[in-house]
Amino acid sequence: MFEKIYCKVKEAESIVIFGHENPDGDCYGSQVGLKEAILATWPKKKVYITGSGLPFLFDRLGKMDLVTEQMIEDSLAFIIDFNIISRSEDKRIKLAKDFVKIDHHISPIDFKEGIEVKDTTSSSSAQLVLEFILESEMKLTKRGAEALFVGLVMDTGRFQFLEKDGRSFKTASELMKYEIEPKTLYDLMYQSEENSIALKGYIYSNYQKTANGLIYLIITKEDRIKYGVSSNEASGLVNLLSGIKGYPIWAFFVELEDKKMRVELRSKSIPVQTIALKFGGGGHANAAGISSCDFSSELINDIISDLDKTLEKGE
Amino acid sequence: MFEKIYCKVKEAESIVIFGHENPDGDCYGSQVGLKEAILATWPKKKVYITGSGLPFLFDRLGKMDLVTEQMIEDSLAFIIDFNIISRSEDKRIKLAKDFVKIDHHISPIDFKEGIEVKDTTSSSSAQLVLEFILESEMKLTKRGAEALFVGLVMDTGRFQFLEKDGRSFKTASELMKYEIEPKTLYDLMYQSEENSIALKGYIYSNYQKTANGLIYLIITKEDRIKYGVSSNEASGLVNLLSGIKGYPIWAFFVELEDKKMRVELRSKSIPVQTIALKFGGGGHANAAGISSCDFSSELINDIISDLDKTLEKGE
Repeated sequence: MFEKIYCKVKEAESIVIFGHENPDGDCYGSQVGLKEAILATWPKKKVYITGSGLPFLFDRLGKMDLVTEQMIEDSLAFIIDFNIISRSEDKRIKLAKDFVKIDHHISPIDFKEGIEVKDTTSSSSAQLVLEFILESEMKLTKRGAEALFVGLVMDTGRFQFLEKDGRSFKTASELMKYEIEPKTLYDLMYQSEENSIALKGYIYSNYQKTANGLIYLIITKEDRIKYGVSSNEASGLVNLLSGIKGYPIWAFFVELEDKKMRVELRSKSIPVQTIALKFGGGGHANAAGISSCDFSSELINDIISDLDKTLEKGE
Repeated sequence: MFEKIYCKVKEAESIVIFGHENPDGDCYGSQVGLKEAILATWPKKKVYITGSGLPFLFDRLGKMDLVTEQMIEDSLAFIIDFNIISRSEDKRIKLAKDFVKIDHHISPIDFKEGIEVKDTTSSSSAQLVLEFILESEMKLTKRGAEALFVGLVMDTGRFQFLEKDGRSFKTASELMKYEIEPKTLYDLMYQSEENSIALKGYIYSNYQKTANGLIYLIITKEDRIKYGVSSNEASGLVNLLSGIKGYPIWAFFVELEDKKMRVELRSKSIPVQTIALKFGGGGHANAAGISSCDFSSELINDIISDLDKTLEKGE
């Protein structure tokens, strides 16, 4: 499946691996894992990762690289965990002349810039990166395996959102062969600052409900400032409202800067992706999101009303 | 490893599988998984599971059986997930004349009653049951695989407390071959009632701290009544206070009936078992507990003071 990408990587002297906006564990973990694998296999190549990554993991897994425009122009651009060039966090990606892509997201637009492997059945991009490494008989380091483990764990919600064949467990089992330390990684991934604990207390005490079984919370910019959390951190807590008996859909409406809004929709089995798409968002069937320039009670009420109607109709 | 136990099971016409007091997911899951495997392999045998099991999983995985004293006398007693006969929830186990045992707990006492496989490196008994099934080339049903998955997930804290070789992932991967549905099982395992969510809000908003890095909460009987949770449920939430940056030890002091108290001690790496032992409790290095007939501020302060001193000394 990965032969063409393998050839491109083998040929390239220099590679810059790009991540997406609002990078998550799968994005950053895949970037580090892929870089480690390429360097372990071909120590003479130059490999860089660009974007903001996940700083709380830098001590363990490594920081992002300083990448110049010249370096991008002279490199193969590796796109990982996103599907459209415009979603790259590092907008200088356009300077690149050659592209390859590995991703697991559904894309409405063809990737015309280069070769891609797109497997939407995979729970994570990290899993695809490992499959690329194994199929191509590339080497991998413990650090790279740990990074891929982080990606796998964070994108599956700790082995919750699995593929039908559950191959994430096989991937995790393969990664264990590199003597990785899951406990230490979990401690890093799931540690929280005290302010975020206080925010959790607020979330659990202030969520709202609709008649047909939606649980939701609106987090304003003022709330975020009070609890000292970024909009990313706030959005990331949506699953605190998961699995409450009788409430199969749960949602967060988070105010960003400049009255913009991020909506996170989650569900047990009723698809929420359709509603996300209706409001210009996207995602998976049971985990979708909307980014909007409008943080208004009208829009929020519209989305809530649509979700509630979906619930009324039933599964 | 399991030959002797396999021979005993193959010979027996009737088998009663016993679980331990306060049965957990690993105990109940292993009981169901083992019963399913024996019946799938030898449909003519009689196999019963006894104890209270986990009622919230009965609709999915099956209820406990009605077992008479005569049935126990006429059966091979299969002990699973516990190490001493006296810990059996069903005390009529003493009526049995023949015993086998599979367990992963450290035992201070030899098992003299029969044949045992004791593998303390295994994260769960469910994993050992699957290894027994695979090694003996027994059959297994989807329901049995789901039950073993529940045992594996609940005893590893969802793949957190792993063996050094991380073979839990291999086990999970093997179980996926029976087309089990992890998402549905997680939904059952991790669903919460709204009152428990409200209690979580209370916990996150009311915990206390010591100067050297202990986080703790005292939950009185009145608190429990207000939030409608049993002392077991309340104690089970201790890990909500885990992993807060700068607080390597966390503890719950839960008032039971009649002014009794259950203390749950947890830590990242500093051992808390020694303090549990000092106050008449026990457990593991990083997860220990104390049961006391005394719910008094003096005793609570003594324990807090000892934990704080441990932290002052450092790791």
